[in-house]
Amino acid sequence: MYSEKVMDHFSNPRNVGEIEDADGVGTEGNPTCGDLMTIYIKVEDEIITDIKFKTFGCAAAIATSSMITEMALGKTIEEALKITRNDVANELEGLPPVKMHCSNLAADALRAAIEDYRKKQ
Amino acid sequence: MYSEKVMDHFSNPRNVGEIEDADGVGTEGNPTCGDLMTIYIKVEDEIITDIKFKTFGCAAAIATSSMITEMALGKTIEEALKITRNDVANELEGLPPVKMHCSNLAADALRAAIEDYRKKQ
Ligand code: FES
Repeated sequence: MYSEKVMDHFSNPRNVGEIEDADGVGTEGNPTCGDLMTIYIKVEDEIITDIKFKTFGCAAAIATSSMITEMALGKTIEEALKITRNDVANELEGLPPVKMHCSNLAADALRAAIEDYRKKQ
Repeated sequence: MYSEKVMDHFSNPRNVGEIEDADGVGTEGNPTCGDLMTIYIKVEDEIITDIKFKTFGCAAAIATSSMITEMALGKTIEEALKITRNDVANELEGLPPVKMHCSNLAADALRAAIEDYRKKQ
């Protein structure tokens, strides 16, 4: 069902956890399945210098979050805002169509964390 | 969001794995979120003597599967067939309404495993 990349990021997820003194925090709920995702970011000179996520979602949600945190780390917030759920799915070598809704969670939570950071400036 | 019992069964799930020489195997897909659940049973004199599950589903799916395997172990297959998703949710001290669909997976997969066992007799 899942690509090797998805299985790798699911079994060994990167950047799991919280950031106590985060500059931005975003939580999103998935209307399809009810799962929640929170992303925490640290920002310096408009660059994402640290990023962590927390979820009780499914394997696809964990893998897409792990991947999006890797993709966003070191990018400017402008660049990070441009990451779509399709970019993440492509980096993961595809997701089953029935699990594409899970990849929304990660992209939406990242956007929410960046908005939260901007509001605080 | 989740009761202590759900968090316990999610963080420390019971009966995870496969049974190589299972007497019955049932796999069900969840129409809401696309997740899959497989349950394996060993049966002796109509009693479930071993049970294991495998899923890539969310925290609620893992907790309900863990709980239903504990509830079914040692029961006759007649008794096990009567376990409903509400029984499982009650044993878990409740599930958020938005996650009740996840508890179907475990109950349906158990039923499918028992049907598979019966077909093979
Ligand atoms: S099924 Fe809820 S995030 Fe995947």
